[in-house]
Amino acid sequence: MKKNVIVGQSGGPTAVINSSLYGVVCEALNREDSCGTVYGMINGIEGLLKGTVMDMEPLERSGELELIRTTPGAYLGSCRYRLPDDLEDEVYPRIFERFEEYHIGFFFYIGGNDSMDTVSKLSAYADKIDSEIRFIGIPKTIDNDLVLTDHTPGFGSAAKYVASTVREIALDASVYDSKKSVTIVEIMGRHAGWLTAASALARKFEGDNPVLIYLPETAFDPDKFIESVRSSLESVSNLVVCISEGIHDAEGTFICELEKNVETDTFGHKMLTGSGKYLENLVKEKLGVKVRSVELNVSQRCSSAMLSGTDLKEAAAAGAYGVKCALEGASTKMVAFTRLPDAPYRIDYELKDVHLICNQEKTVPLEWITKDGSDVSQDFIDYALPLIQGSVKVPEENGLPKFAYRKNC
Amino acid sequence: MKKNVIVGQSGGPTAVINSSLYGVVCEALNREDSCGTVYGMINGIEGLLKGTVMDMEPLERSGELELIRTTPGAYLGSCRYRLPDDLEDEVYPRIFERFEEYHIGFFFYIGGNDSMDTVSKLSAYADKIDSEIRFIGIPKTIDNDLVLTDHTPGFGSAAKYVASTVREIALDASVYDSKKSVTIVEIMGRHAGWLTAASALARKFEGDNPVLIYLPETAFDPDKFIESVRSSLESVSNLVVCISEGIHDAEGTFICELEKNVETDTFGHKMLTGSGKYLENLVKEKLGVKVRSVELNVSQRCSSAMLSGTDLKEAAAAGAYGVKCALEGASTKMVAFTRLPDAPYRIDYELKDVHLICNQEKTVPLEWITKDGSDVSQDFIDYALPLIQGSVKVPEENGLPKFAYRKNC
Repeated sequence: MKKNVIVGQSGGPTAVINSSLYGVVCEALNREDSCGTVYGMINGIEGLLKGTVMDMEPLERSGELELIRTTPGAYLGSCRYRLPDDLEDEVYPRIFERFEEYHIGFFFYIGGNDSMDTVSKLSAYADKIDSEIRFIGIPKTIDNDLVLTDHTPGFGSAAKYVASTVREIALDASVYDSKKSVTIVEIMGRHAGWLTAASALARKFEGDNPVLIYLPETAFDPDKFIESVRSSLESVSNLVVCISEGIHDAEGTFICELEKNVETDTFGHKMLTGSGKYLENLVKEKLGVKVRSVELNVSQRCSSAMLSGTDLKEAAAAGAYGVKCALEGASTKMVAFTRLPDAPYRIDYELKDVHLICNQEKTVPLEWITKDGSDVSQDFIDYALPLIQGSVKVPEENGLPKFAYRKNC
Repeated sequence: MKKNVIVGQSGGPTAVINSSLYGVVCEALNREDSCGTVYGMINGIEGLLKGTVMDMEPLERSGELELIRTTPGAYLGSCRYRLPDDLEDEVYPRIFERFEEYHIGFFFYIGGNDSMDTVSKLSAYADKIDSEIRFIGIPKTIDNDLVLTDHTPGFGSAAKYVASTVREIALDASVYDSKKSVTIVEIMGRHAGWLTAASALARKFEGDNPVLIYLPETAFDPDKFIESVRSSLESVSNLVVCISEGIHDAEGTFICELEKNVETDTFGHKMLTGSGKYLENLVKEKLGVKVRSVELNVSQRCSSAMLSGTDLKEAAAAGAYGVKCALEGASTKMVAFTRLPDAPYRIDYELKDVHLICNQEKTVPLEWITKDGSDVSQDFIDYALPLIQGSVKVPEENGLPKFAYRKNC
């Protein structure tokens, strides 16, 4: 009897995590010789434990699956559930009972680091009990911080969103006359600066904004920062500075934690302003120029307005490739991208050992960051530019993007 | 001898203010029988005073003008210069000397309330000195708060941006399981709630997010707000609330000013958190649920990703119509839109007395706001929906939107 397939999504959403879901489901439905029912876990492994799964096939018949492909967020819902390190924990047999119940032969989990940890642990437990279920991770994260892969689905679209939005903010900042102004843009990424680095793509010509870019890979020195802002303002009246939310000083203290005077609000909560807000006040104090800070916020991971065609396509292909490999016998792997050395840009899809990926973090190479820590090199541009190519026309209805959603949520 | 044309932009930028510039310049260049040189003021009336103007014709020849049409921000640069009320002030003769110098016969100013004040005062001064220069205002503001016109160019695209972004944020908020959460989205608009109201367009079905919407047109009661959030969470697990930045209590105190404990930061600056941040803390304190606030920020006015085709077209047509009317002898007017009563949506372009427009403010009619002040009515939806129709393909280069910019800035 044919084994069934189950797929889930986990961790923070991205603009293309549903494209990977589309890839997995389409490929599995197309391989009806080898695959039985294709199930989706609602809210990842948590949903599986509760027995909330759905049959994905009707979505293909209704055309909804095609709409899912360009819908941001996680169609199946997500979770942030971390499996216990101890494989003797009672949760493992409970999960595998569910697998038994649904007659699962193939398990696909779309996510980042923590999700690969789930794939790794389930694989290890399967080994332990001699289960034949195959476990494959499909990468996903706007942070681009997974090791053993050239890049991750989700990064290209987020990078395109960041670069185009910073380009627009720079235009917005430039409309007033010669009075000096500083705009600080705070970009997602606590430990890895890939997304902040992508702001460099916003430049229309050499010396264009954003003139200064700070990643969390190097220590941030507020005094040097002020000096850089001061000297940059000599040549650029309306300066745009991009910072990662995770910039920190040489001691490792996040810049957003340097604010000492403000302790608690009316309700007793610590008023943690972001790093951008802190630096806004610092610039105001030290240089006395007009300054504002802008936090790009969740749109970085959920905007469908700036989908990268390359990213969307690769996300779906990663899902399909995972299914293909699982059917050929692979397990305990994550789908990875290897960039071919010659131009034009092309990638090979490969499998990497998921045990080696989970709980690792790939940061921007230090040689791609300029010595003073205030910019990225051409190497980064060459790396990132192919990933934002191609635009996607999201279906529209009544003047707005049309999205798929589960009717009961 | 033919008189020359001068055009300027003023106030905050929008996504389509350059489309109006395109409209004015194209029409004026096409009417070479009546118009001489077409000048642009760099940074509005301030630039005119300094003598920084540019010849616009080369932009048409180079194709740059077509690119300007879909570029957000203000291509010519903007200013926030308010002319003195006293027409005896020495600035008036200085401005009219410039007009003389450039042999100006037609003056077009693209902007909002304050810009119409400039048009009004220059018109009044022209009357006073019997000048034959014709002054026409071209409306522009994302706030949609100009009187005597159905709506303003800039609003449709901003509304489309707000609605689609809120729709995406609602998807993002819904990915985690049944744990209750609240997302508060803060939207531009100090006194007029048009843009915040546009978030209602984000709903995909009845009862969908954003469930609660608060405009500055009515008094905001924090206690009632908490009660509404509490009861909404009974039916919607992941609640999205949209608020205008300008919501205020019955005494007129802005909600963002209610925070009392936090006085100053390390540098002695008052730490004014936004209204969203204040309400985030209030919800955390009173209801103990997961809560975050998101400020949509400047992308509302400068994103080219969500241009409304209708808005872009009307913005250009408003500029062209202004030129046509000025050539026919009109002055002291603003171009206005009148919506024809029958479906489908159509507008007539008209002229209204600019003296009656400046320094007025059109807010959302109270009958379009629900009694408890937490939603807008179908009347608003019917009003706004036609304004966000049609999508625009912005030219792309190297994976990013290609924008026009003055090479010296």
